Amino acid sequence: MSGTAPERFSVNQITVKQLSIPELVSACAESGVRNVGLWRDPVRSYGVEAAARLCRDFGLTVTTLCRGGFLTAIDPAERVRALSDNRRAVDEAATLGTDTLVLVSGGLPAGSRDLRGARERVADALAELAPYAAERSVRLALEPLHPMYAADRCVVSTLAQALDLAERFPAGQVGVTIDTYHIWWDDTAPGQIARAGAGGRIHAFQLADWTTPLPAGVLNGRGRLGDGAIDMREWKGYVEAAGYTGPIEVELFNDALWARDGREVLAETVARFVEHVV
Amino acid sequence: MSGTAPERFSVNQITVKQLSIPELVSACAESGVRNVGLWRDPVRSYGVEAAARLCRDFGLTVTTLCRGGFLTAIDPAERVRALSDNRRAVDEAATLGTDTLVLVSGGLPAGSRDLRGARERVADALAELAPYAAERSVRLALEPLHPMYAADRCVVSTLAQALDLAERFPAGQVGVTIDTYHIWWDDTAPGQIARAGAGGRIHAFQLADWTTPLPAGVLNGRGRLGDGAIDMREWKGYVEAAGYTGPIEVELFNDALWARDGREVLAETVARFVEHVV
Repeated sequence: MSGTAPERFSVNQITVKQLSIPELVSACAESGVRNVGLWRDPVRSYGVEAAARLCRDFGLTVTTLCRGGFLTAIDPAERVRALSDNRRAVDEAATLGTDTLVLVSGGLPAGSRDLRGARERVADALAELAPYAAERSVRLALEPLHPMYAADRCVVSTLAQALDLAERFPAGQVGVTIDTYHIWWDDTAPGQIARAGAGGRIHAFQLADWTTPLPAGVLNGRGRLGDGAIDMREWKGYVEAAGYTGPIEVELFNDALWARDGREVLAETVARFVEHVV
Repeated sequence: MSGTAPERFSVNQITVKQLSIPELVSACAESGVRNVGLWRDPVRSYGVEAAARLCRDFGLTVTTLCRGGFLTAIDPAERVRALSDNRRAVDEAATLGTDTLVLVSGGLPAGSRDLRGARERVADALAELAPYAAERSVRLALEPLHPMYAADRCVVSTLAQALDLAERFPAGQVGVTIDTYHIWWDDTAPGQIARAGAGGRIHAFQLADWTTPLPAGVLNGRGRLGDGAIDMREWKGYVEAAGYTGPIEVELFNDALWARDGREVLAETVARFVEHVV
């Protein structure tokens, strides 16, 4: 079996995390996929240089590296560690040849109830990281996560909040990641997408569908395109009306998909992208 | 054991749903609780008139009836049934002597991806129900639910959306329910509370804390006051600054609490209210 995926389609590695990096690259070749979003852990296990070389050899563009962030610590030592780890993430992105590092801001530190303070610490960290990243031609793409993650994963819950933070910096340094799974419920999001586009800050666009019931922990129940409540073409329309013409990543955290054959999941993901997005 | 709960404290019946209505009423007397928010199902099983009489006899004020709503159906027959059921809910509220019927709008109909359309159908239903309720001295209190419920339970996800709907009607007819669990993550909520207060539309105020990890289905993991990420005094401050001086209900959907002795849970809930809210 071989295919030709749409040119803008990108598979985020987490969608088929059961595949090793060589398997992923060859599955992409088989399905005609030209773009991948990579994750730090598997890339580092395989070797950053080696992964970069493999992608180049197969003509694969690395659309994003997921992910840096977790920048909300109060403890000074923890904070230093987080910044240092994020500089490494920038270096890895540069080595992989992607211009976009996705950032998930982090949740509330243990015992804290101060969302506003946590968001300010994200801003402080961006001020340290953005110039470092810019010197390496890497843009930071702050991702608002669904409000159900506000306490334990990401204090930046809306596109408006993400843009409020990003706009403190030059657009070439800090922008946003727009993921349908996180913002589909928000009636102000279309306006915020226009704001992001006008400012040149749409640095990544990702798709996942919203299906219920949510699993315990609410992490690994993202729906396949077409299985849920989100009109993918509507959101693609907003992003394109805002001037975005870049890659579109499909990023599914889904236990049921991970239990299946990864090549089959990739081929199906391409087919669903054609059916529900293009 | 007996106590005197703070005057504005109200226990929402769901918090101690293991108690029958006579047990609830006598537990309230024992803990010095003067206000209850009731739920339709147990009230109807016991008998609406009988429940009303029991509350009156014990000097208990019924602060809200939970809940009407589920007004998003497209199917005409289903829609007629929903409206009819909501008229019954209004009648029950009037019989119980509460002026406030909490409304949960309902999710997307099966197969639909049209959030905007669903929200408009809520508005259409309010137009039919609000005058009916007003004639019976009952106010409709539209409750925004956390965005994680947008698909399957409530297409009204933010206080701003709830107010956009409510403000199409007189304030004495349609207002909002403010519940910390649903809005705590939203940095625009304090401003929306001010808007609601200025318009005389804060019809109910409820508390629950946000704890993680969320359980499967995300319904029954609401935290006891003080156990989670929400600063209760901060939110009480916003609501009071907006002019609200009414009852404060504690409404916990929590499997662990339901497995315990209901009288003990009520006494503990009062104690935590004193510790974290007053």
